[in-house]
Amino acid sequence: MKLKEFAKHLDLSPTTVSRALSGYPEVRESTRKRVADAAIRLGYRPNINAVRLVTGRVGAIGILMERGREVNFAEFLSGMGERLDGEDIDILVSPIAEHDAKEEMQLFSRLVESRRVDAFIVNAPRPNDERIALLHKLGMPFLVHGRSETDVPYAWLDIDNEGAVKRATAYLLDLGHTRIAMINGRPGVTFSLHRDKGYRDALVERGLQFDPRLVAHGSFTDEIGFRFARSFLEQSPRPTALVAGSMMTALGVYSAARSLGLVVGKDISVIAHDDVFPYLNADNMAPSLSTTRSSMRAAGKRSAELVLQLLSGKPATEIQELWPVELILRESTGPVSRGEGR
Amino acid sequence: MKLKEFAKHLDLSPTTVSRALSGYPEVRESTRKRVADAAIRLGYRPNINAVRLVTGRVGAIGILMERGREVNFAEFLSGMGERLDGEDIDILVSPIAEHDAKEEMQLFSRLVESRRVDAFIVNAPRPNDERIALLHKLGMPFLVHGRSETDVPYAWLDIDNEGAVKRATAYLLDLGHTRIAMINGRPGVTFSLHRDKGYRDALVERGLQFDPRLVAHGSFTDEIGFRFARSFLEQSPRPTALVAGSMMTALGVYSAARSLGLVVGKDISVIAHDDVFPYLNADNMAPSLSTTRSSMRAAGKRSAELVLQLLSGKPATEIQELWPVELILRESTGPVSRGEGR
Repeated sequence: MKLKEFAKHLDLSPTTVSRALSGYPEVRESTRKRVADAAIRLGYRPNINAVRLVTGRVGAIGILMERGREVNFAEFLSGMGERLDGEDIDILVSPIAEHDAKEEMQLFSRLVESRRVDAFIVNAPRPNDERIALLHKLGMPFLVHGRSETDVPYAWLDIDNEGAVKRATAYLLDLGHTRIAMINGRPGVTFSLHRDKGYRDALVERGLQFDPRLVAHGSFTDEIGFRFARSFLEQSPRPTALVAGSMMTALGVYSAARSLGLVVGKDISVIAHDDVFPYLNADNMAPSLSTTRSSMRAAGKRSAELVLQLLSGKPATEIQELWPVELILRESTGPVSRGEGR
Repeated sequence: MKLKEFAKHLDLSPTTVSRALSGYPEVRESTRKRVADAAIRLGYRPNINAVRLVTGRVGAIGILMERGREVNFAEFLSGMGERLDGEDIDILVSPIAEHDAKEEMQLFSRLVESRRVDAFIVNAPRPNDERIALLHKLGMPFLVHGRSETDVPYAWLDIDNEGAVKRATAYLLDLGHTRIAMINGRPGVTFSLHRDKGYRDALVERGLQFDPRLVAHGSFTDEIGFRFARSFLEQSPRPTALVAGSMMTALGVYSAARSLGLVVGKDISVIAHDDVFPYLNADNMAPSLSTTRSSMRAAGKRSAELVLQLLSGKPATEIQELWPVELILRESTGPVSRGEGR
């Protein structure tokens, strides 16, 4: 059956039918359901190229995969997958080297020019992010996962990194810790800056001085967690608490503590940010790990949903979500030991 | 400058120029270099849609992302990215639910029909894999990462899973262990079956009986590692050695041993398969973990290269690579304790 014939049968225009079947939520739900039911009943199978031609959509969302961010990327992608599964919308992944602004700009131009995607998702933005300005200029719909200070209106979804780290640090201060180290993410990206601010603000509110020797930045790996934790714990006086940027970082921190004969939760308190990876559980660590928690997968799922809303015509400035972050206390945090922390 | 004009300048056909610039290795290296140099010198920027039209290529490789396999998938994808970075070739990721053969088949048909990709990579195949038969039938170039017994010629890259586990098990037997447990990957996929075979064969060669109570299958997570290890270690007599399918599994095994007051490397020897994740290092675990090792990222990189060879006309049956797997001994393996293991 041809599209025209099928549409006539439903007393709808071919355009409406195509849109209803294209996977984008532009058509009223009742109409969409009627078309879908009829398609099943009558065995109508749309010609995808025809649908594309009518809707002007290619059925793909673009995203860059930056080297060194793979583990978070995979979780985010899985979340997108959960939302897009069954929607006939694919994800076009463009691999890029780490933070190569020029390469990224060329890539965006190329993808926009060749009409390979309907929308983009920008991950791990920087405060002044040329990619955001470019996508805005090119008129390409996009969602930012994170935030930027780039001066154009844009849709975004972010977690409250600043609030999360501030709360974690304040909790450690409540326990009597005063020398608190932090292993943060890569320098220069907005989420690291937000976390830096949360950490500083918590200290300043208690009248404590910020000590740059207690803060380090790097990728989220056990190796980097191990190295920074070792060098912090070898300081004298040594820190009695540590805020870690990721679960992987925390694995390295645990190893470093053990290698120095220190007991996590007693000699050194640890709180890490947990993106809720299905394969690494804070409850199963020994001792179980206190965390600030926000699911990266849920963020990916919601981001895909927000992109669909964007494509259905919702203004970008109405798509701005800030998610609160939970603080979950387990065995890795405790009061400062007697004679320490002052 | 138009393609025709640029090609004339180089005294080449527009087709050759397009091919040289399309990112596929069909053109002699010297010609390719000459075209690329001239493009830079003369500021020629190809119209991507024109290139696509001439070469019949869309510049994308398709791959399915199956739920529950994200961590390995991300590493594989990163490896592909390393090879494709700068090639103007993207990766089209289609999210799918876990092992839904019908959904996968529909998806393949749709992607082939809509000409969205030039080639596919099939991950984690099963012995009788309908996807392989379908792609062969549809005439779509594809590479299998892993192996299948499906009766069509196909290109593949695999690691020697059978040999790796056989060698790991034999080494544990050499140390005097006789009750050796294994936490393998999901049932039904070829690599799990190959690992099962390697394990059994090692036992049988020493005249030992295979005990099904010592083998479990599941996803590669710390949670599943923890649960299976707990239940193995509570058996009486308990196993004195354990072969784990992944680094994540090993994290769970370490926690389970600790929770029972057992010392890894003394009370229980552990060898795990290491896909060489950049964020989780066997050397940094306490005790450091003995592994069978093969880089998932390297496999992704090589797979992208092999797909390019396939697209440049190399016959599928000439693209078949089996990679050996290293066995790396660290502190988590030791001789069976006196009075045990018999």
